[in-house]
Amino acid sequence: MLETLEEHRSHGGVQGVYRHASSSTGTDMTFSAFVPEHDAGAKLPVLWFLSGLTCTHANVTEKGEYRAACAEHGVIFLAPDTSPRGEDVPDDEAYDFGKGAGFYVDATQEPWARHFAMRSYIEGELPVLVGEHFPVDLDRQGITGHSMGGHGALTTALRNPDRFASVSAFSPIVSPLNCPWGEKALGGYLGPVREAWRAYDACALIEDGARLPHLLVDQGTADDFLENQLKTGLLVEACEKAGIAADIRMQDGYDHSYYFISSFMADHVAWHAQRLGC
Amino acid sequence: MLETLEEHRSHGGVQGVYRHASSSTGTDMTFSAFVPEHDAGAKLPVLWFLSGLTCTHANVTEKGEYRAACAEHGVIFLAPDTSPRGEDVPDDEAYDFGKGAGFYVDATQEPWARHFAMRSYIEGELPVLVGEHFPVDLDRQGITGHSMGGHGALTTALRNPDRFASVSAFSPIVSPLNCPWGEKALGGYLGPVREAWRAYDACALIEDGARLPHLLVDQGTADDFLENQLKTGLLVEACEKAGIAADIRMQDGYDHSYYFISSFMADHVAWHAQRLGC
Repeated sequence: MLETLEEHRSHGGVQGVYRHASSSTGTDMTFSAFVPEHDAGAKLPVLWFLSGLTCTHANVTEKGEYRAACAEHGVIFLAPDTSPRGEDVPDDEAYDFGKGAGFYVDATQEPWARHFAMRSYIEGELPVLVGEHFPVDLDRQGITGHSMGGHGALTTALRNPDRFASVSAFSPIVSPLNCPWGEKALGGYLGPVREAWRAYDACALIEDGARLPHLLVDQGTADDFLENQLKTGLLVEACEKAGIAADIRMQDGYDHSYYFISSFMADHVAWHAQRLGC
Repeated sequence: MLETLEEHRSHGGVQGVYRHASSSTGTDMTFSAFVPEHDAGAKLPVLWFLSGLTCTHANVTEKGEYRAACAEHGVIFLAPDTSPRGEDVPDDEAYDFGKGAGFYVDATQEPWARHFAMRSYIEGELPVLVGEHFPVDLDRQGITGHSMGGHGALTTALRNPDRFASVSAFSPIVSPLNCPWGEKALGGYLGPVREAWRAYDACALIEDGARLPHLLVDQGTADDFLENQLKTGLLVEACEKAGIAADIRMQDGYDHSYYFISSFMADHVAWHAQRLGC
């Protein structure tokens, strides 16, 4: 069951927001989907966008500037929420833990384990639902994301090499094992055994043998989180050691905001479209 | 004095938000400006965007999708607020009167007359300030806007034919004399003498002899306000009678939202750029 919350014609296609009861999180979940104009019966590739801390589907939907490029290339754009929501979902006062900060993991620690199953939601449940309700060709999927969502995109792709034909990220957290955001979130959701965190750390996954066929990353040089949280250099090193063809671009003067993301969104959509056979 | 509230690099240029003490409104006023990358010493044309009911500068700044096109054509994009703000500014409980609903008039009625002087602000004060602080060529100005701001763009241009080389609008209120929004706002700000309203009614201004060299309007057919408030047909008639070369496009299935505006924003920026000698 998929409930339509809103639909607007935009750039020739339809931008919608939808809600459904999720078995992964045990809550209602909301996501947005842009479906470009297409021939009846056609199946389009899909680009997943995982959002960053504090975001819902709405941030990229309103500020991401992806629709023109997705309409041009014929790509569906899918933006999930960043955590379960609702009154019976536990939360933390901080912006970087609890609601709005699911980190795309399956939590094992209390009180988080019951609802915080964003890995299962993104990997298992949502693609099936999307395949049932939208004209999606699930053999042509790409994934990207921003910050915490860049971490989500990289790690989801590294764990599921057969699912995604293309992977990119905007200012991703590249190694939760090596930054305060990661220490707090993975420690809280997964507990103190750091070995368990490696499945949620892009650099550790690469070190442990996971591979991407290629990778596009944009990172602003004026991003306040670059030095202490994002640590792009660690991903550059990991890709070099592993022989991953990574195009990791340091963008001069850009910060961590959607003004940055939207500047390079059309580039990313075109890059994915090329690899998704558009 | 211009205070910088924020600046972000975006699409190669700078998206900023600025505040200043306005002599027109007797309040602080906030606006946004996007300045594309440009050669040192260059002066760029400017496109003014007047926003609709309930908006501040922020709505179009975040959702308008104008930066890529403005960067491509070398056009500065200027988005003022829609009314004075502040604790000592009178307000009304409704969304369509008082704060967020200045209607681009100089109010003559109490308690509005002291602060609600958006006509003087947009026509007189703000262009001077912008000319002093940004690399603007004030001989090359265009104006557009949405809904109440479309009304503002049309009427400001009709009253100032020497200032604007290009005029367009998204789903404008074309005749406040003939719709509930106009009755309420112009009645409240200007009083019951309807003759005084004609300076703020695009169709009446045209009927009274004002002219535009050309005009581009986009209007969604699924816009809930089309029939009772916007009444695009009245503008079509007025332009036909007056011999104004108007391209008024009814866009099938589009509503009143920024999903509509952003779909045609690049078209409008290109249209203005051509007429502003870009």
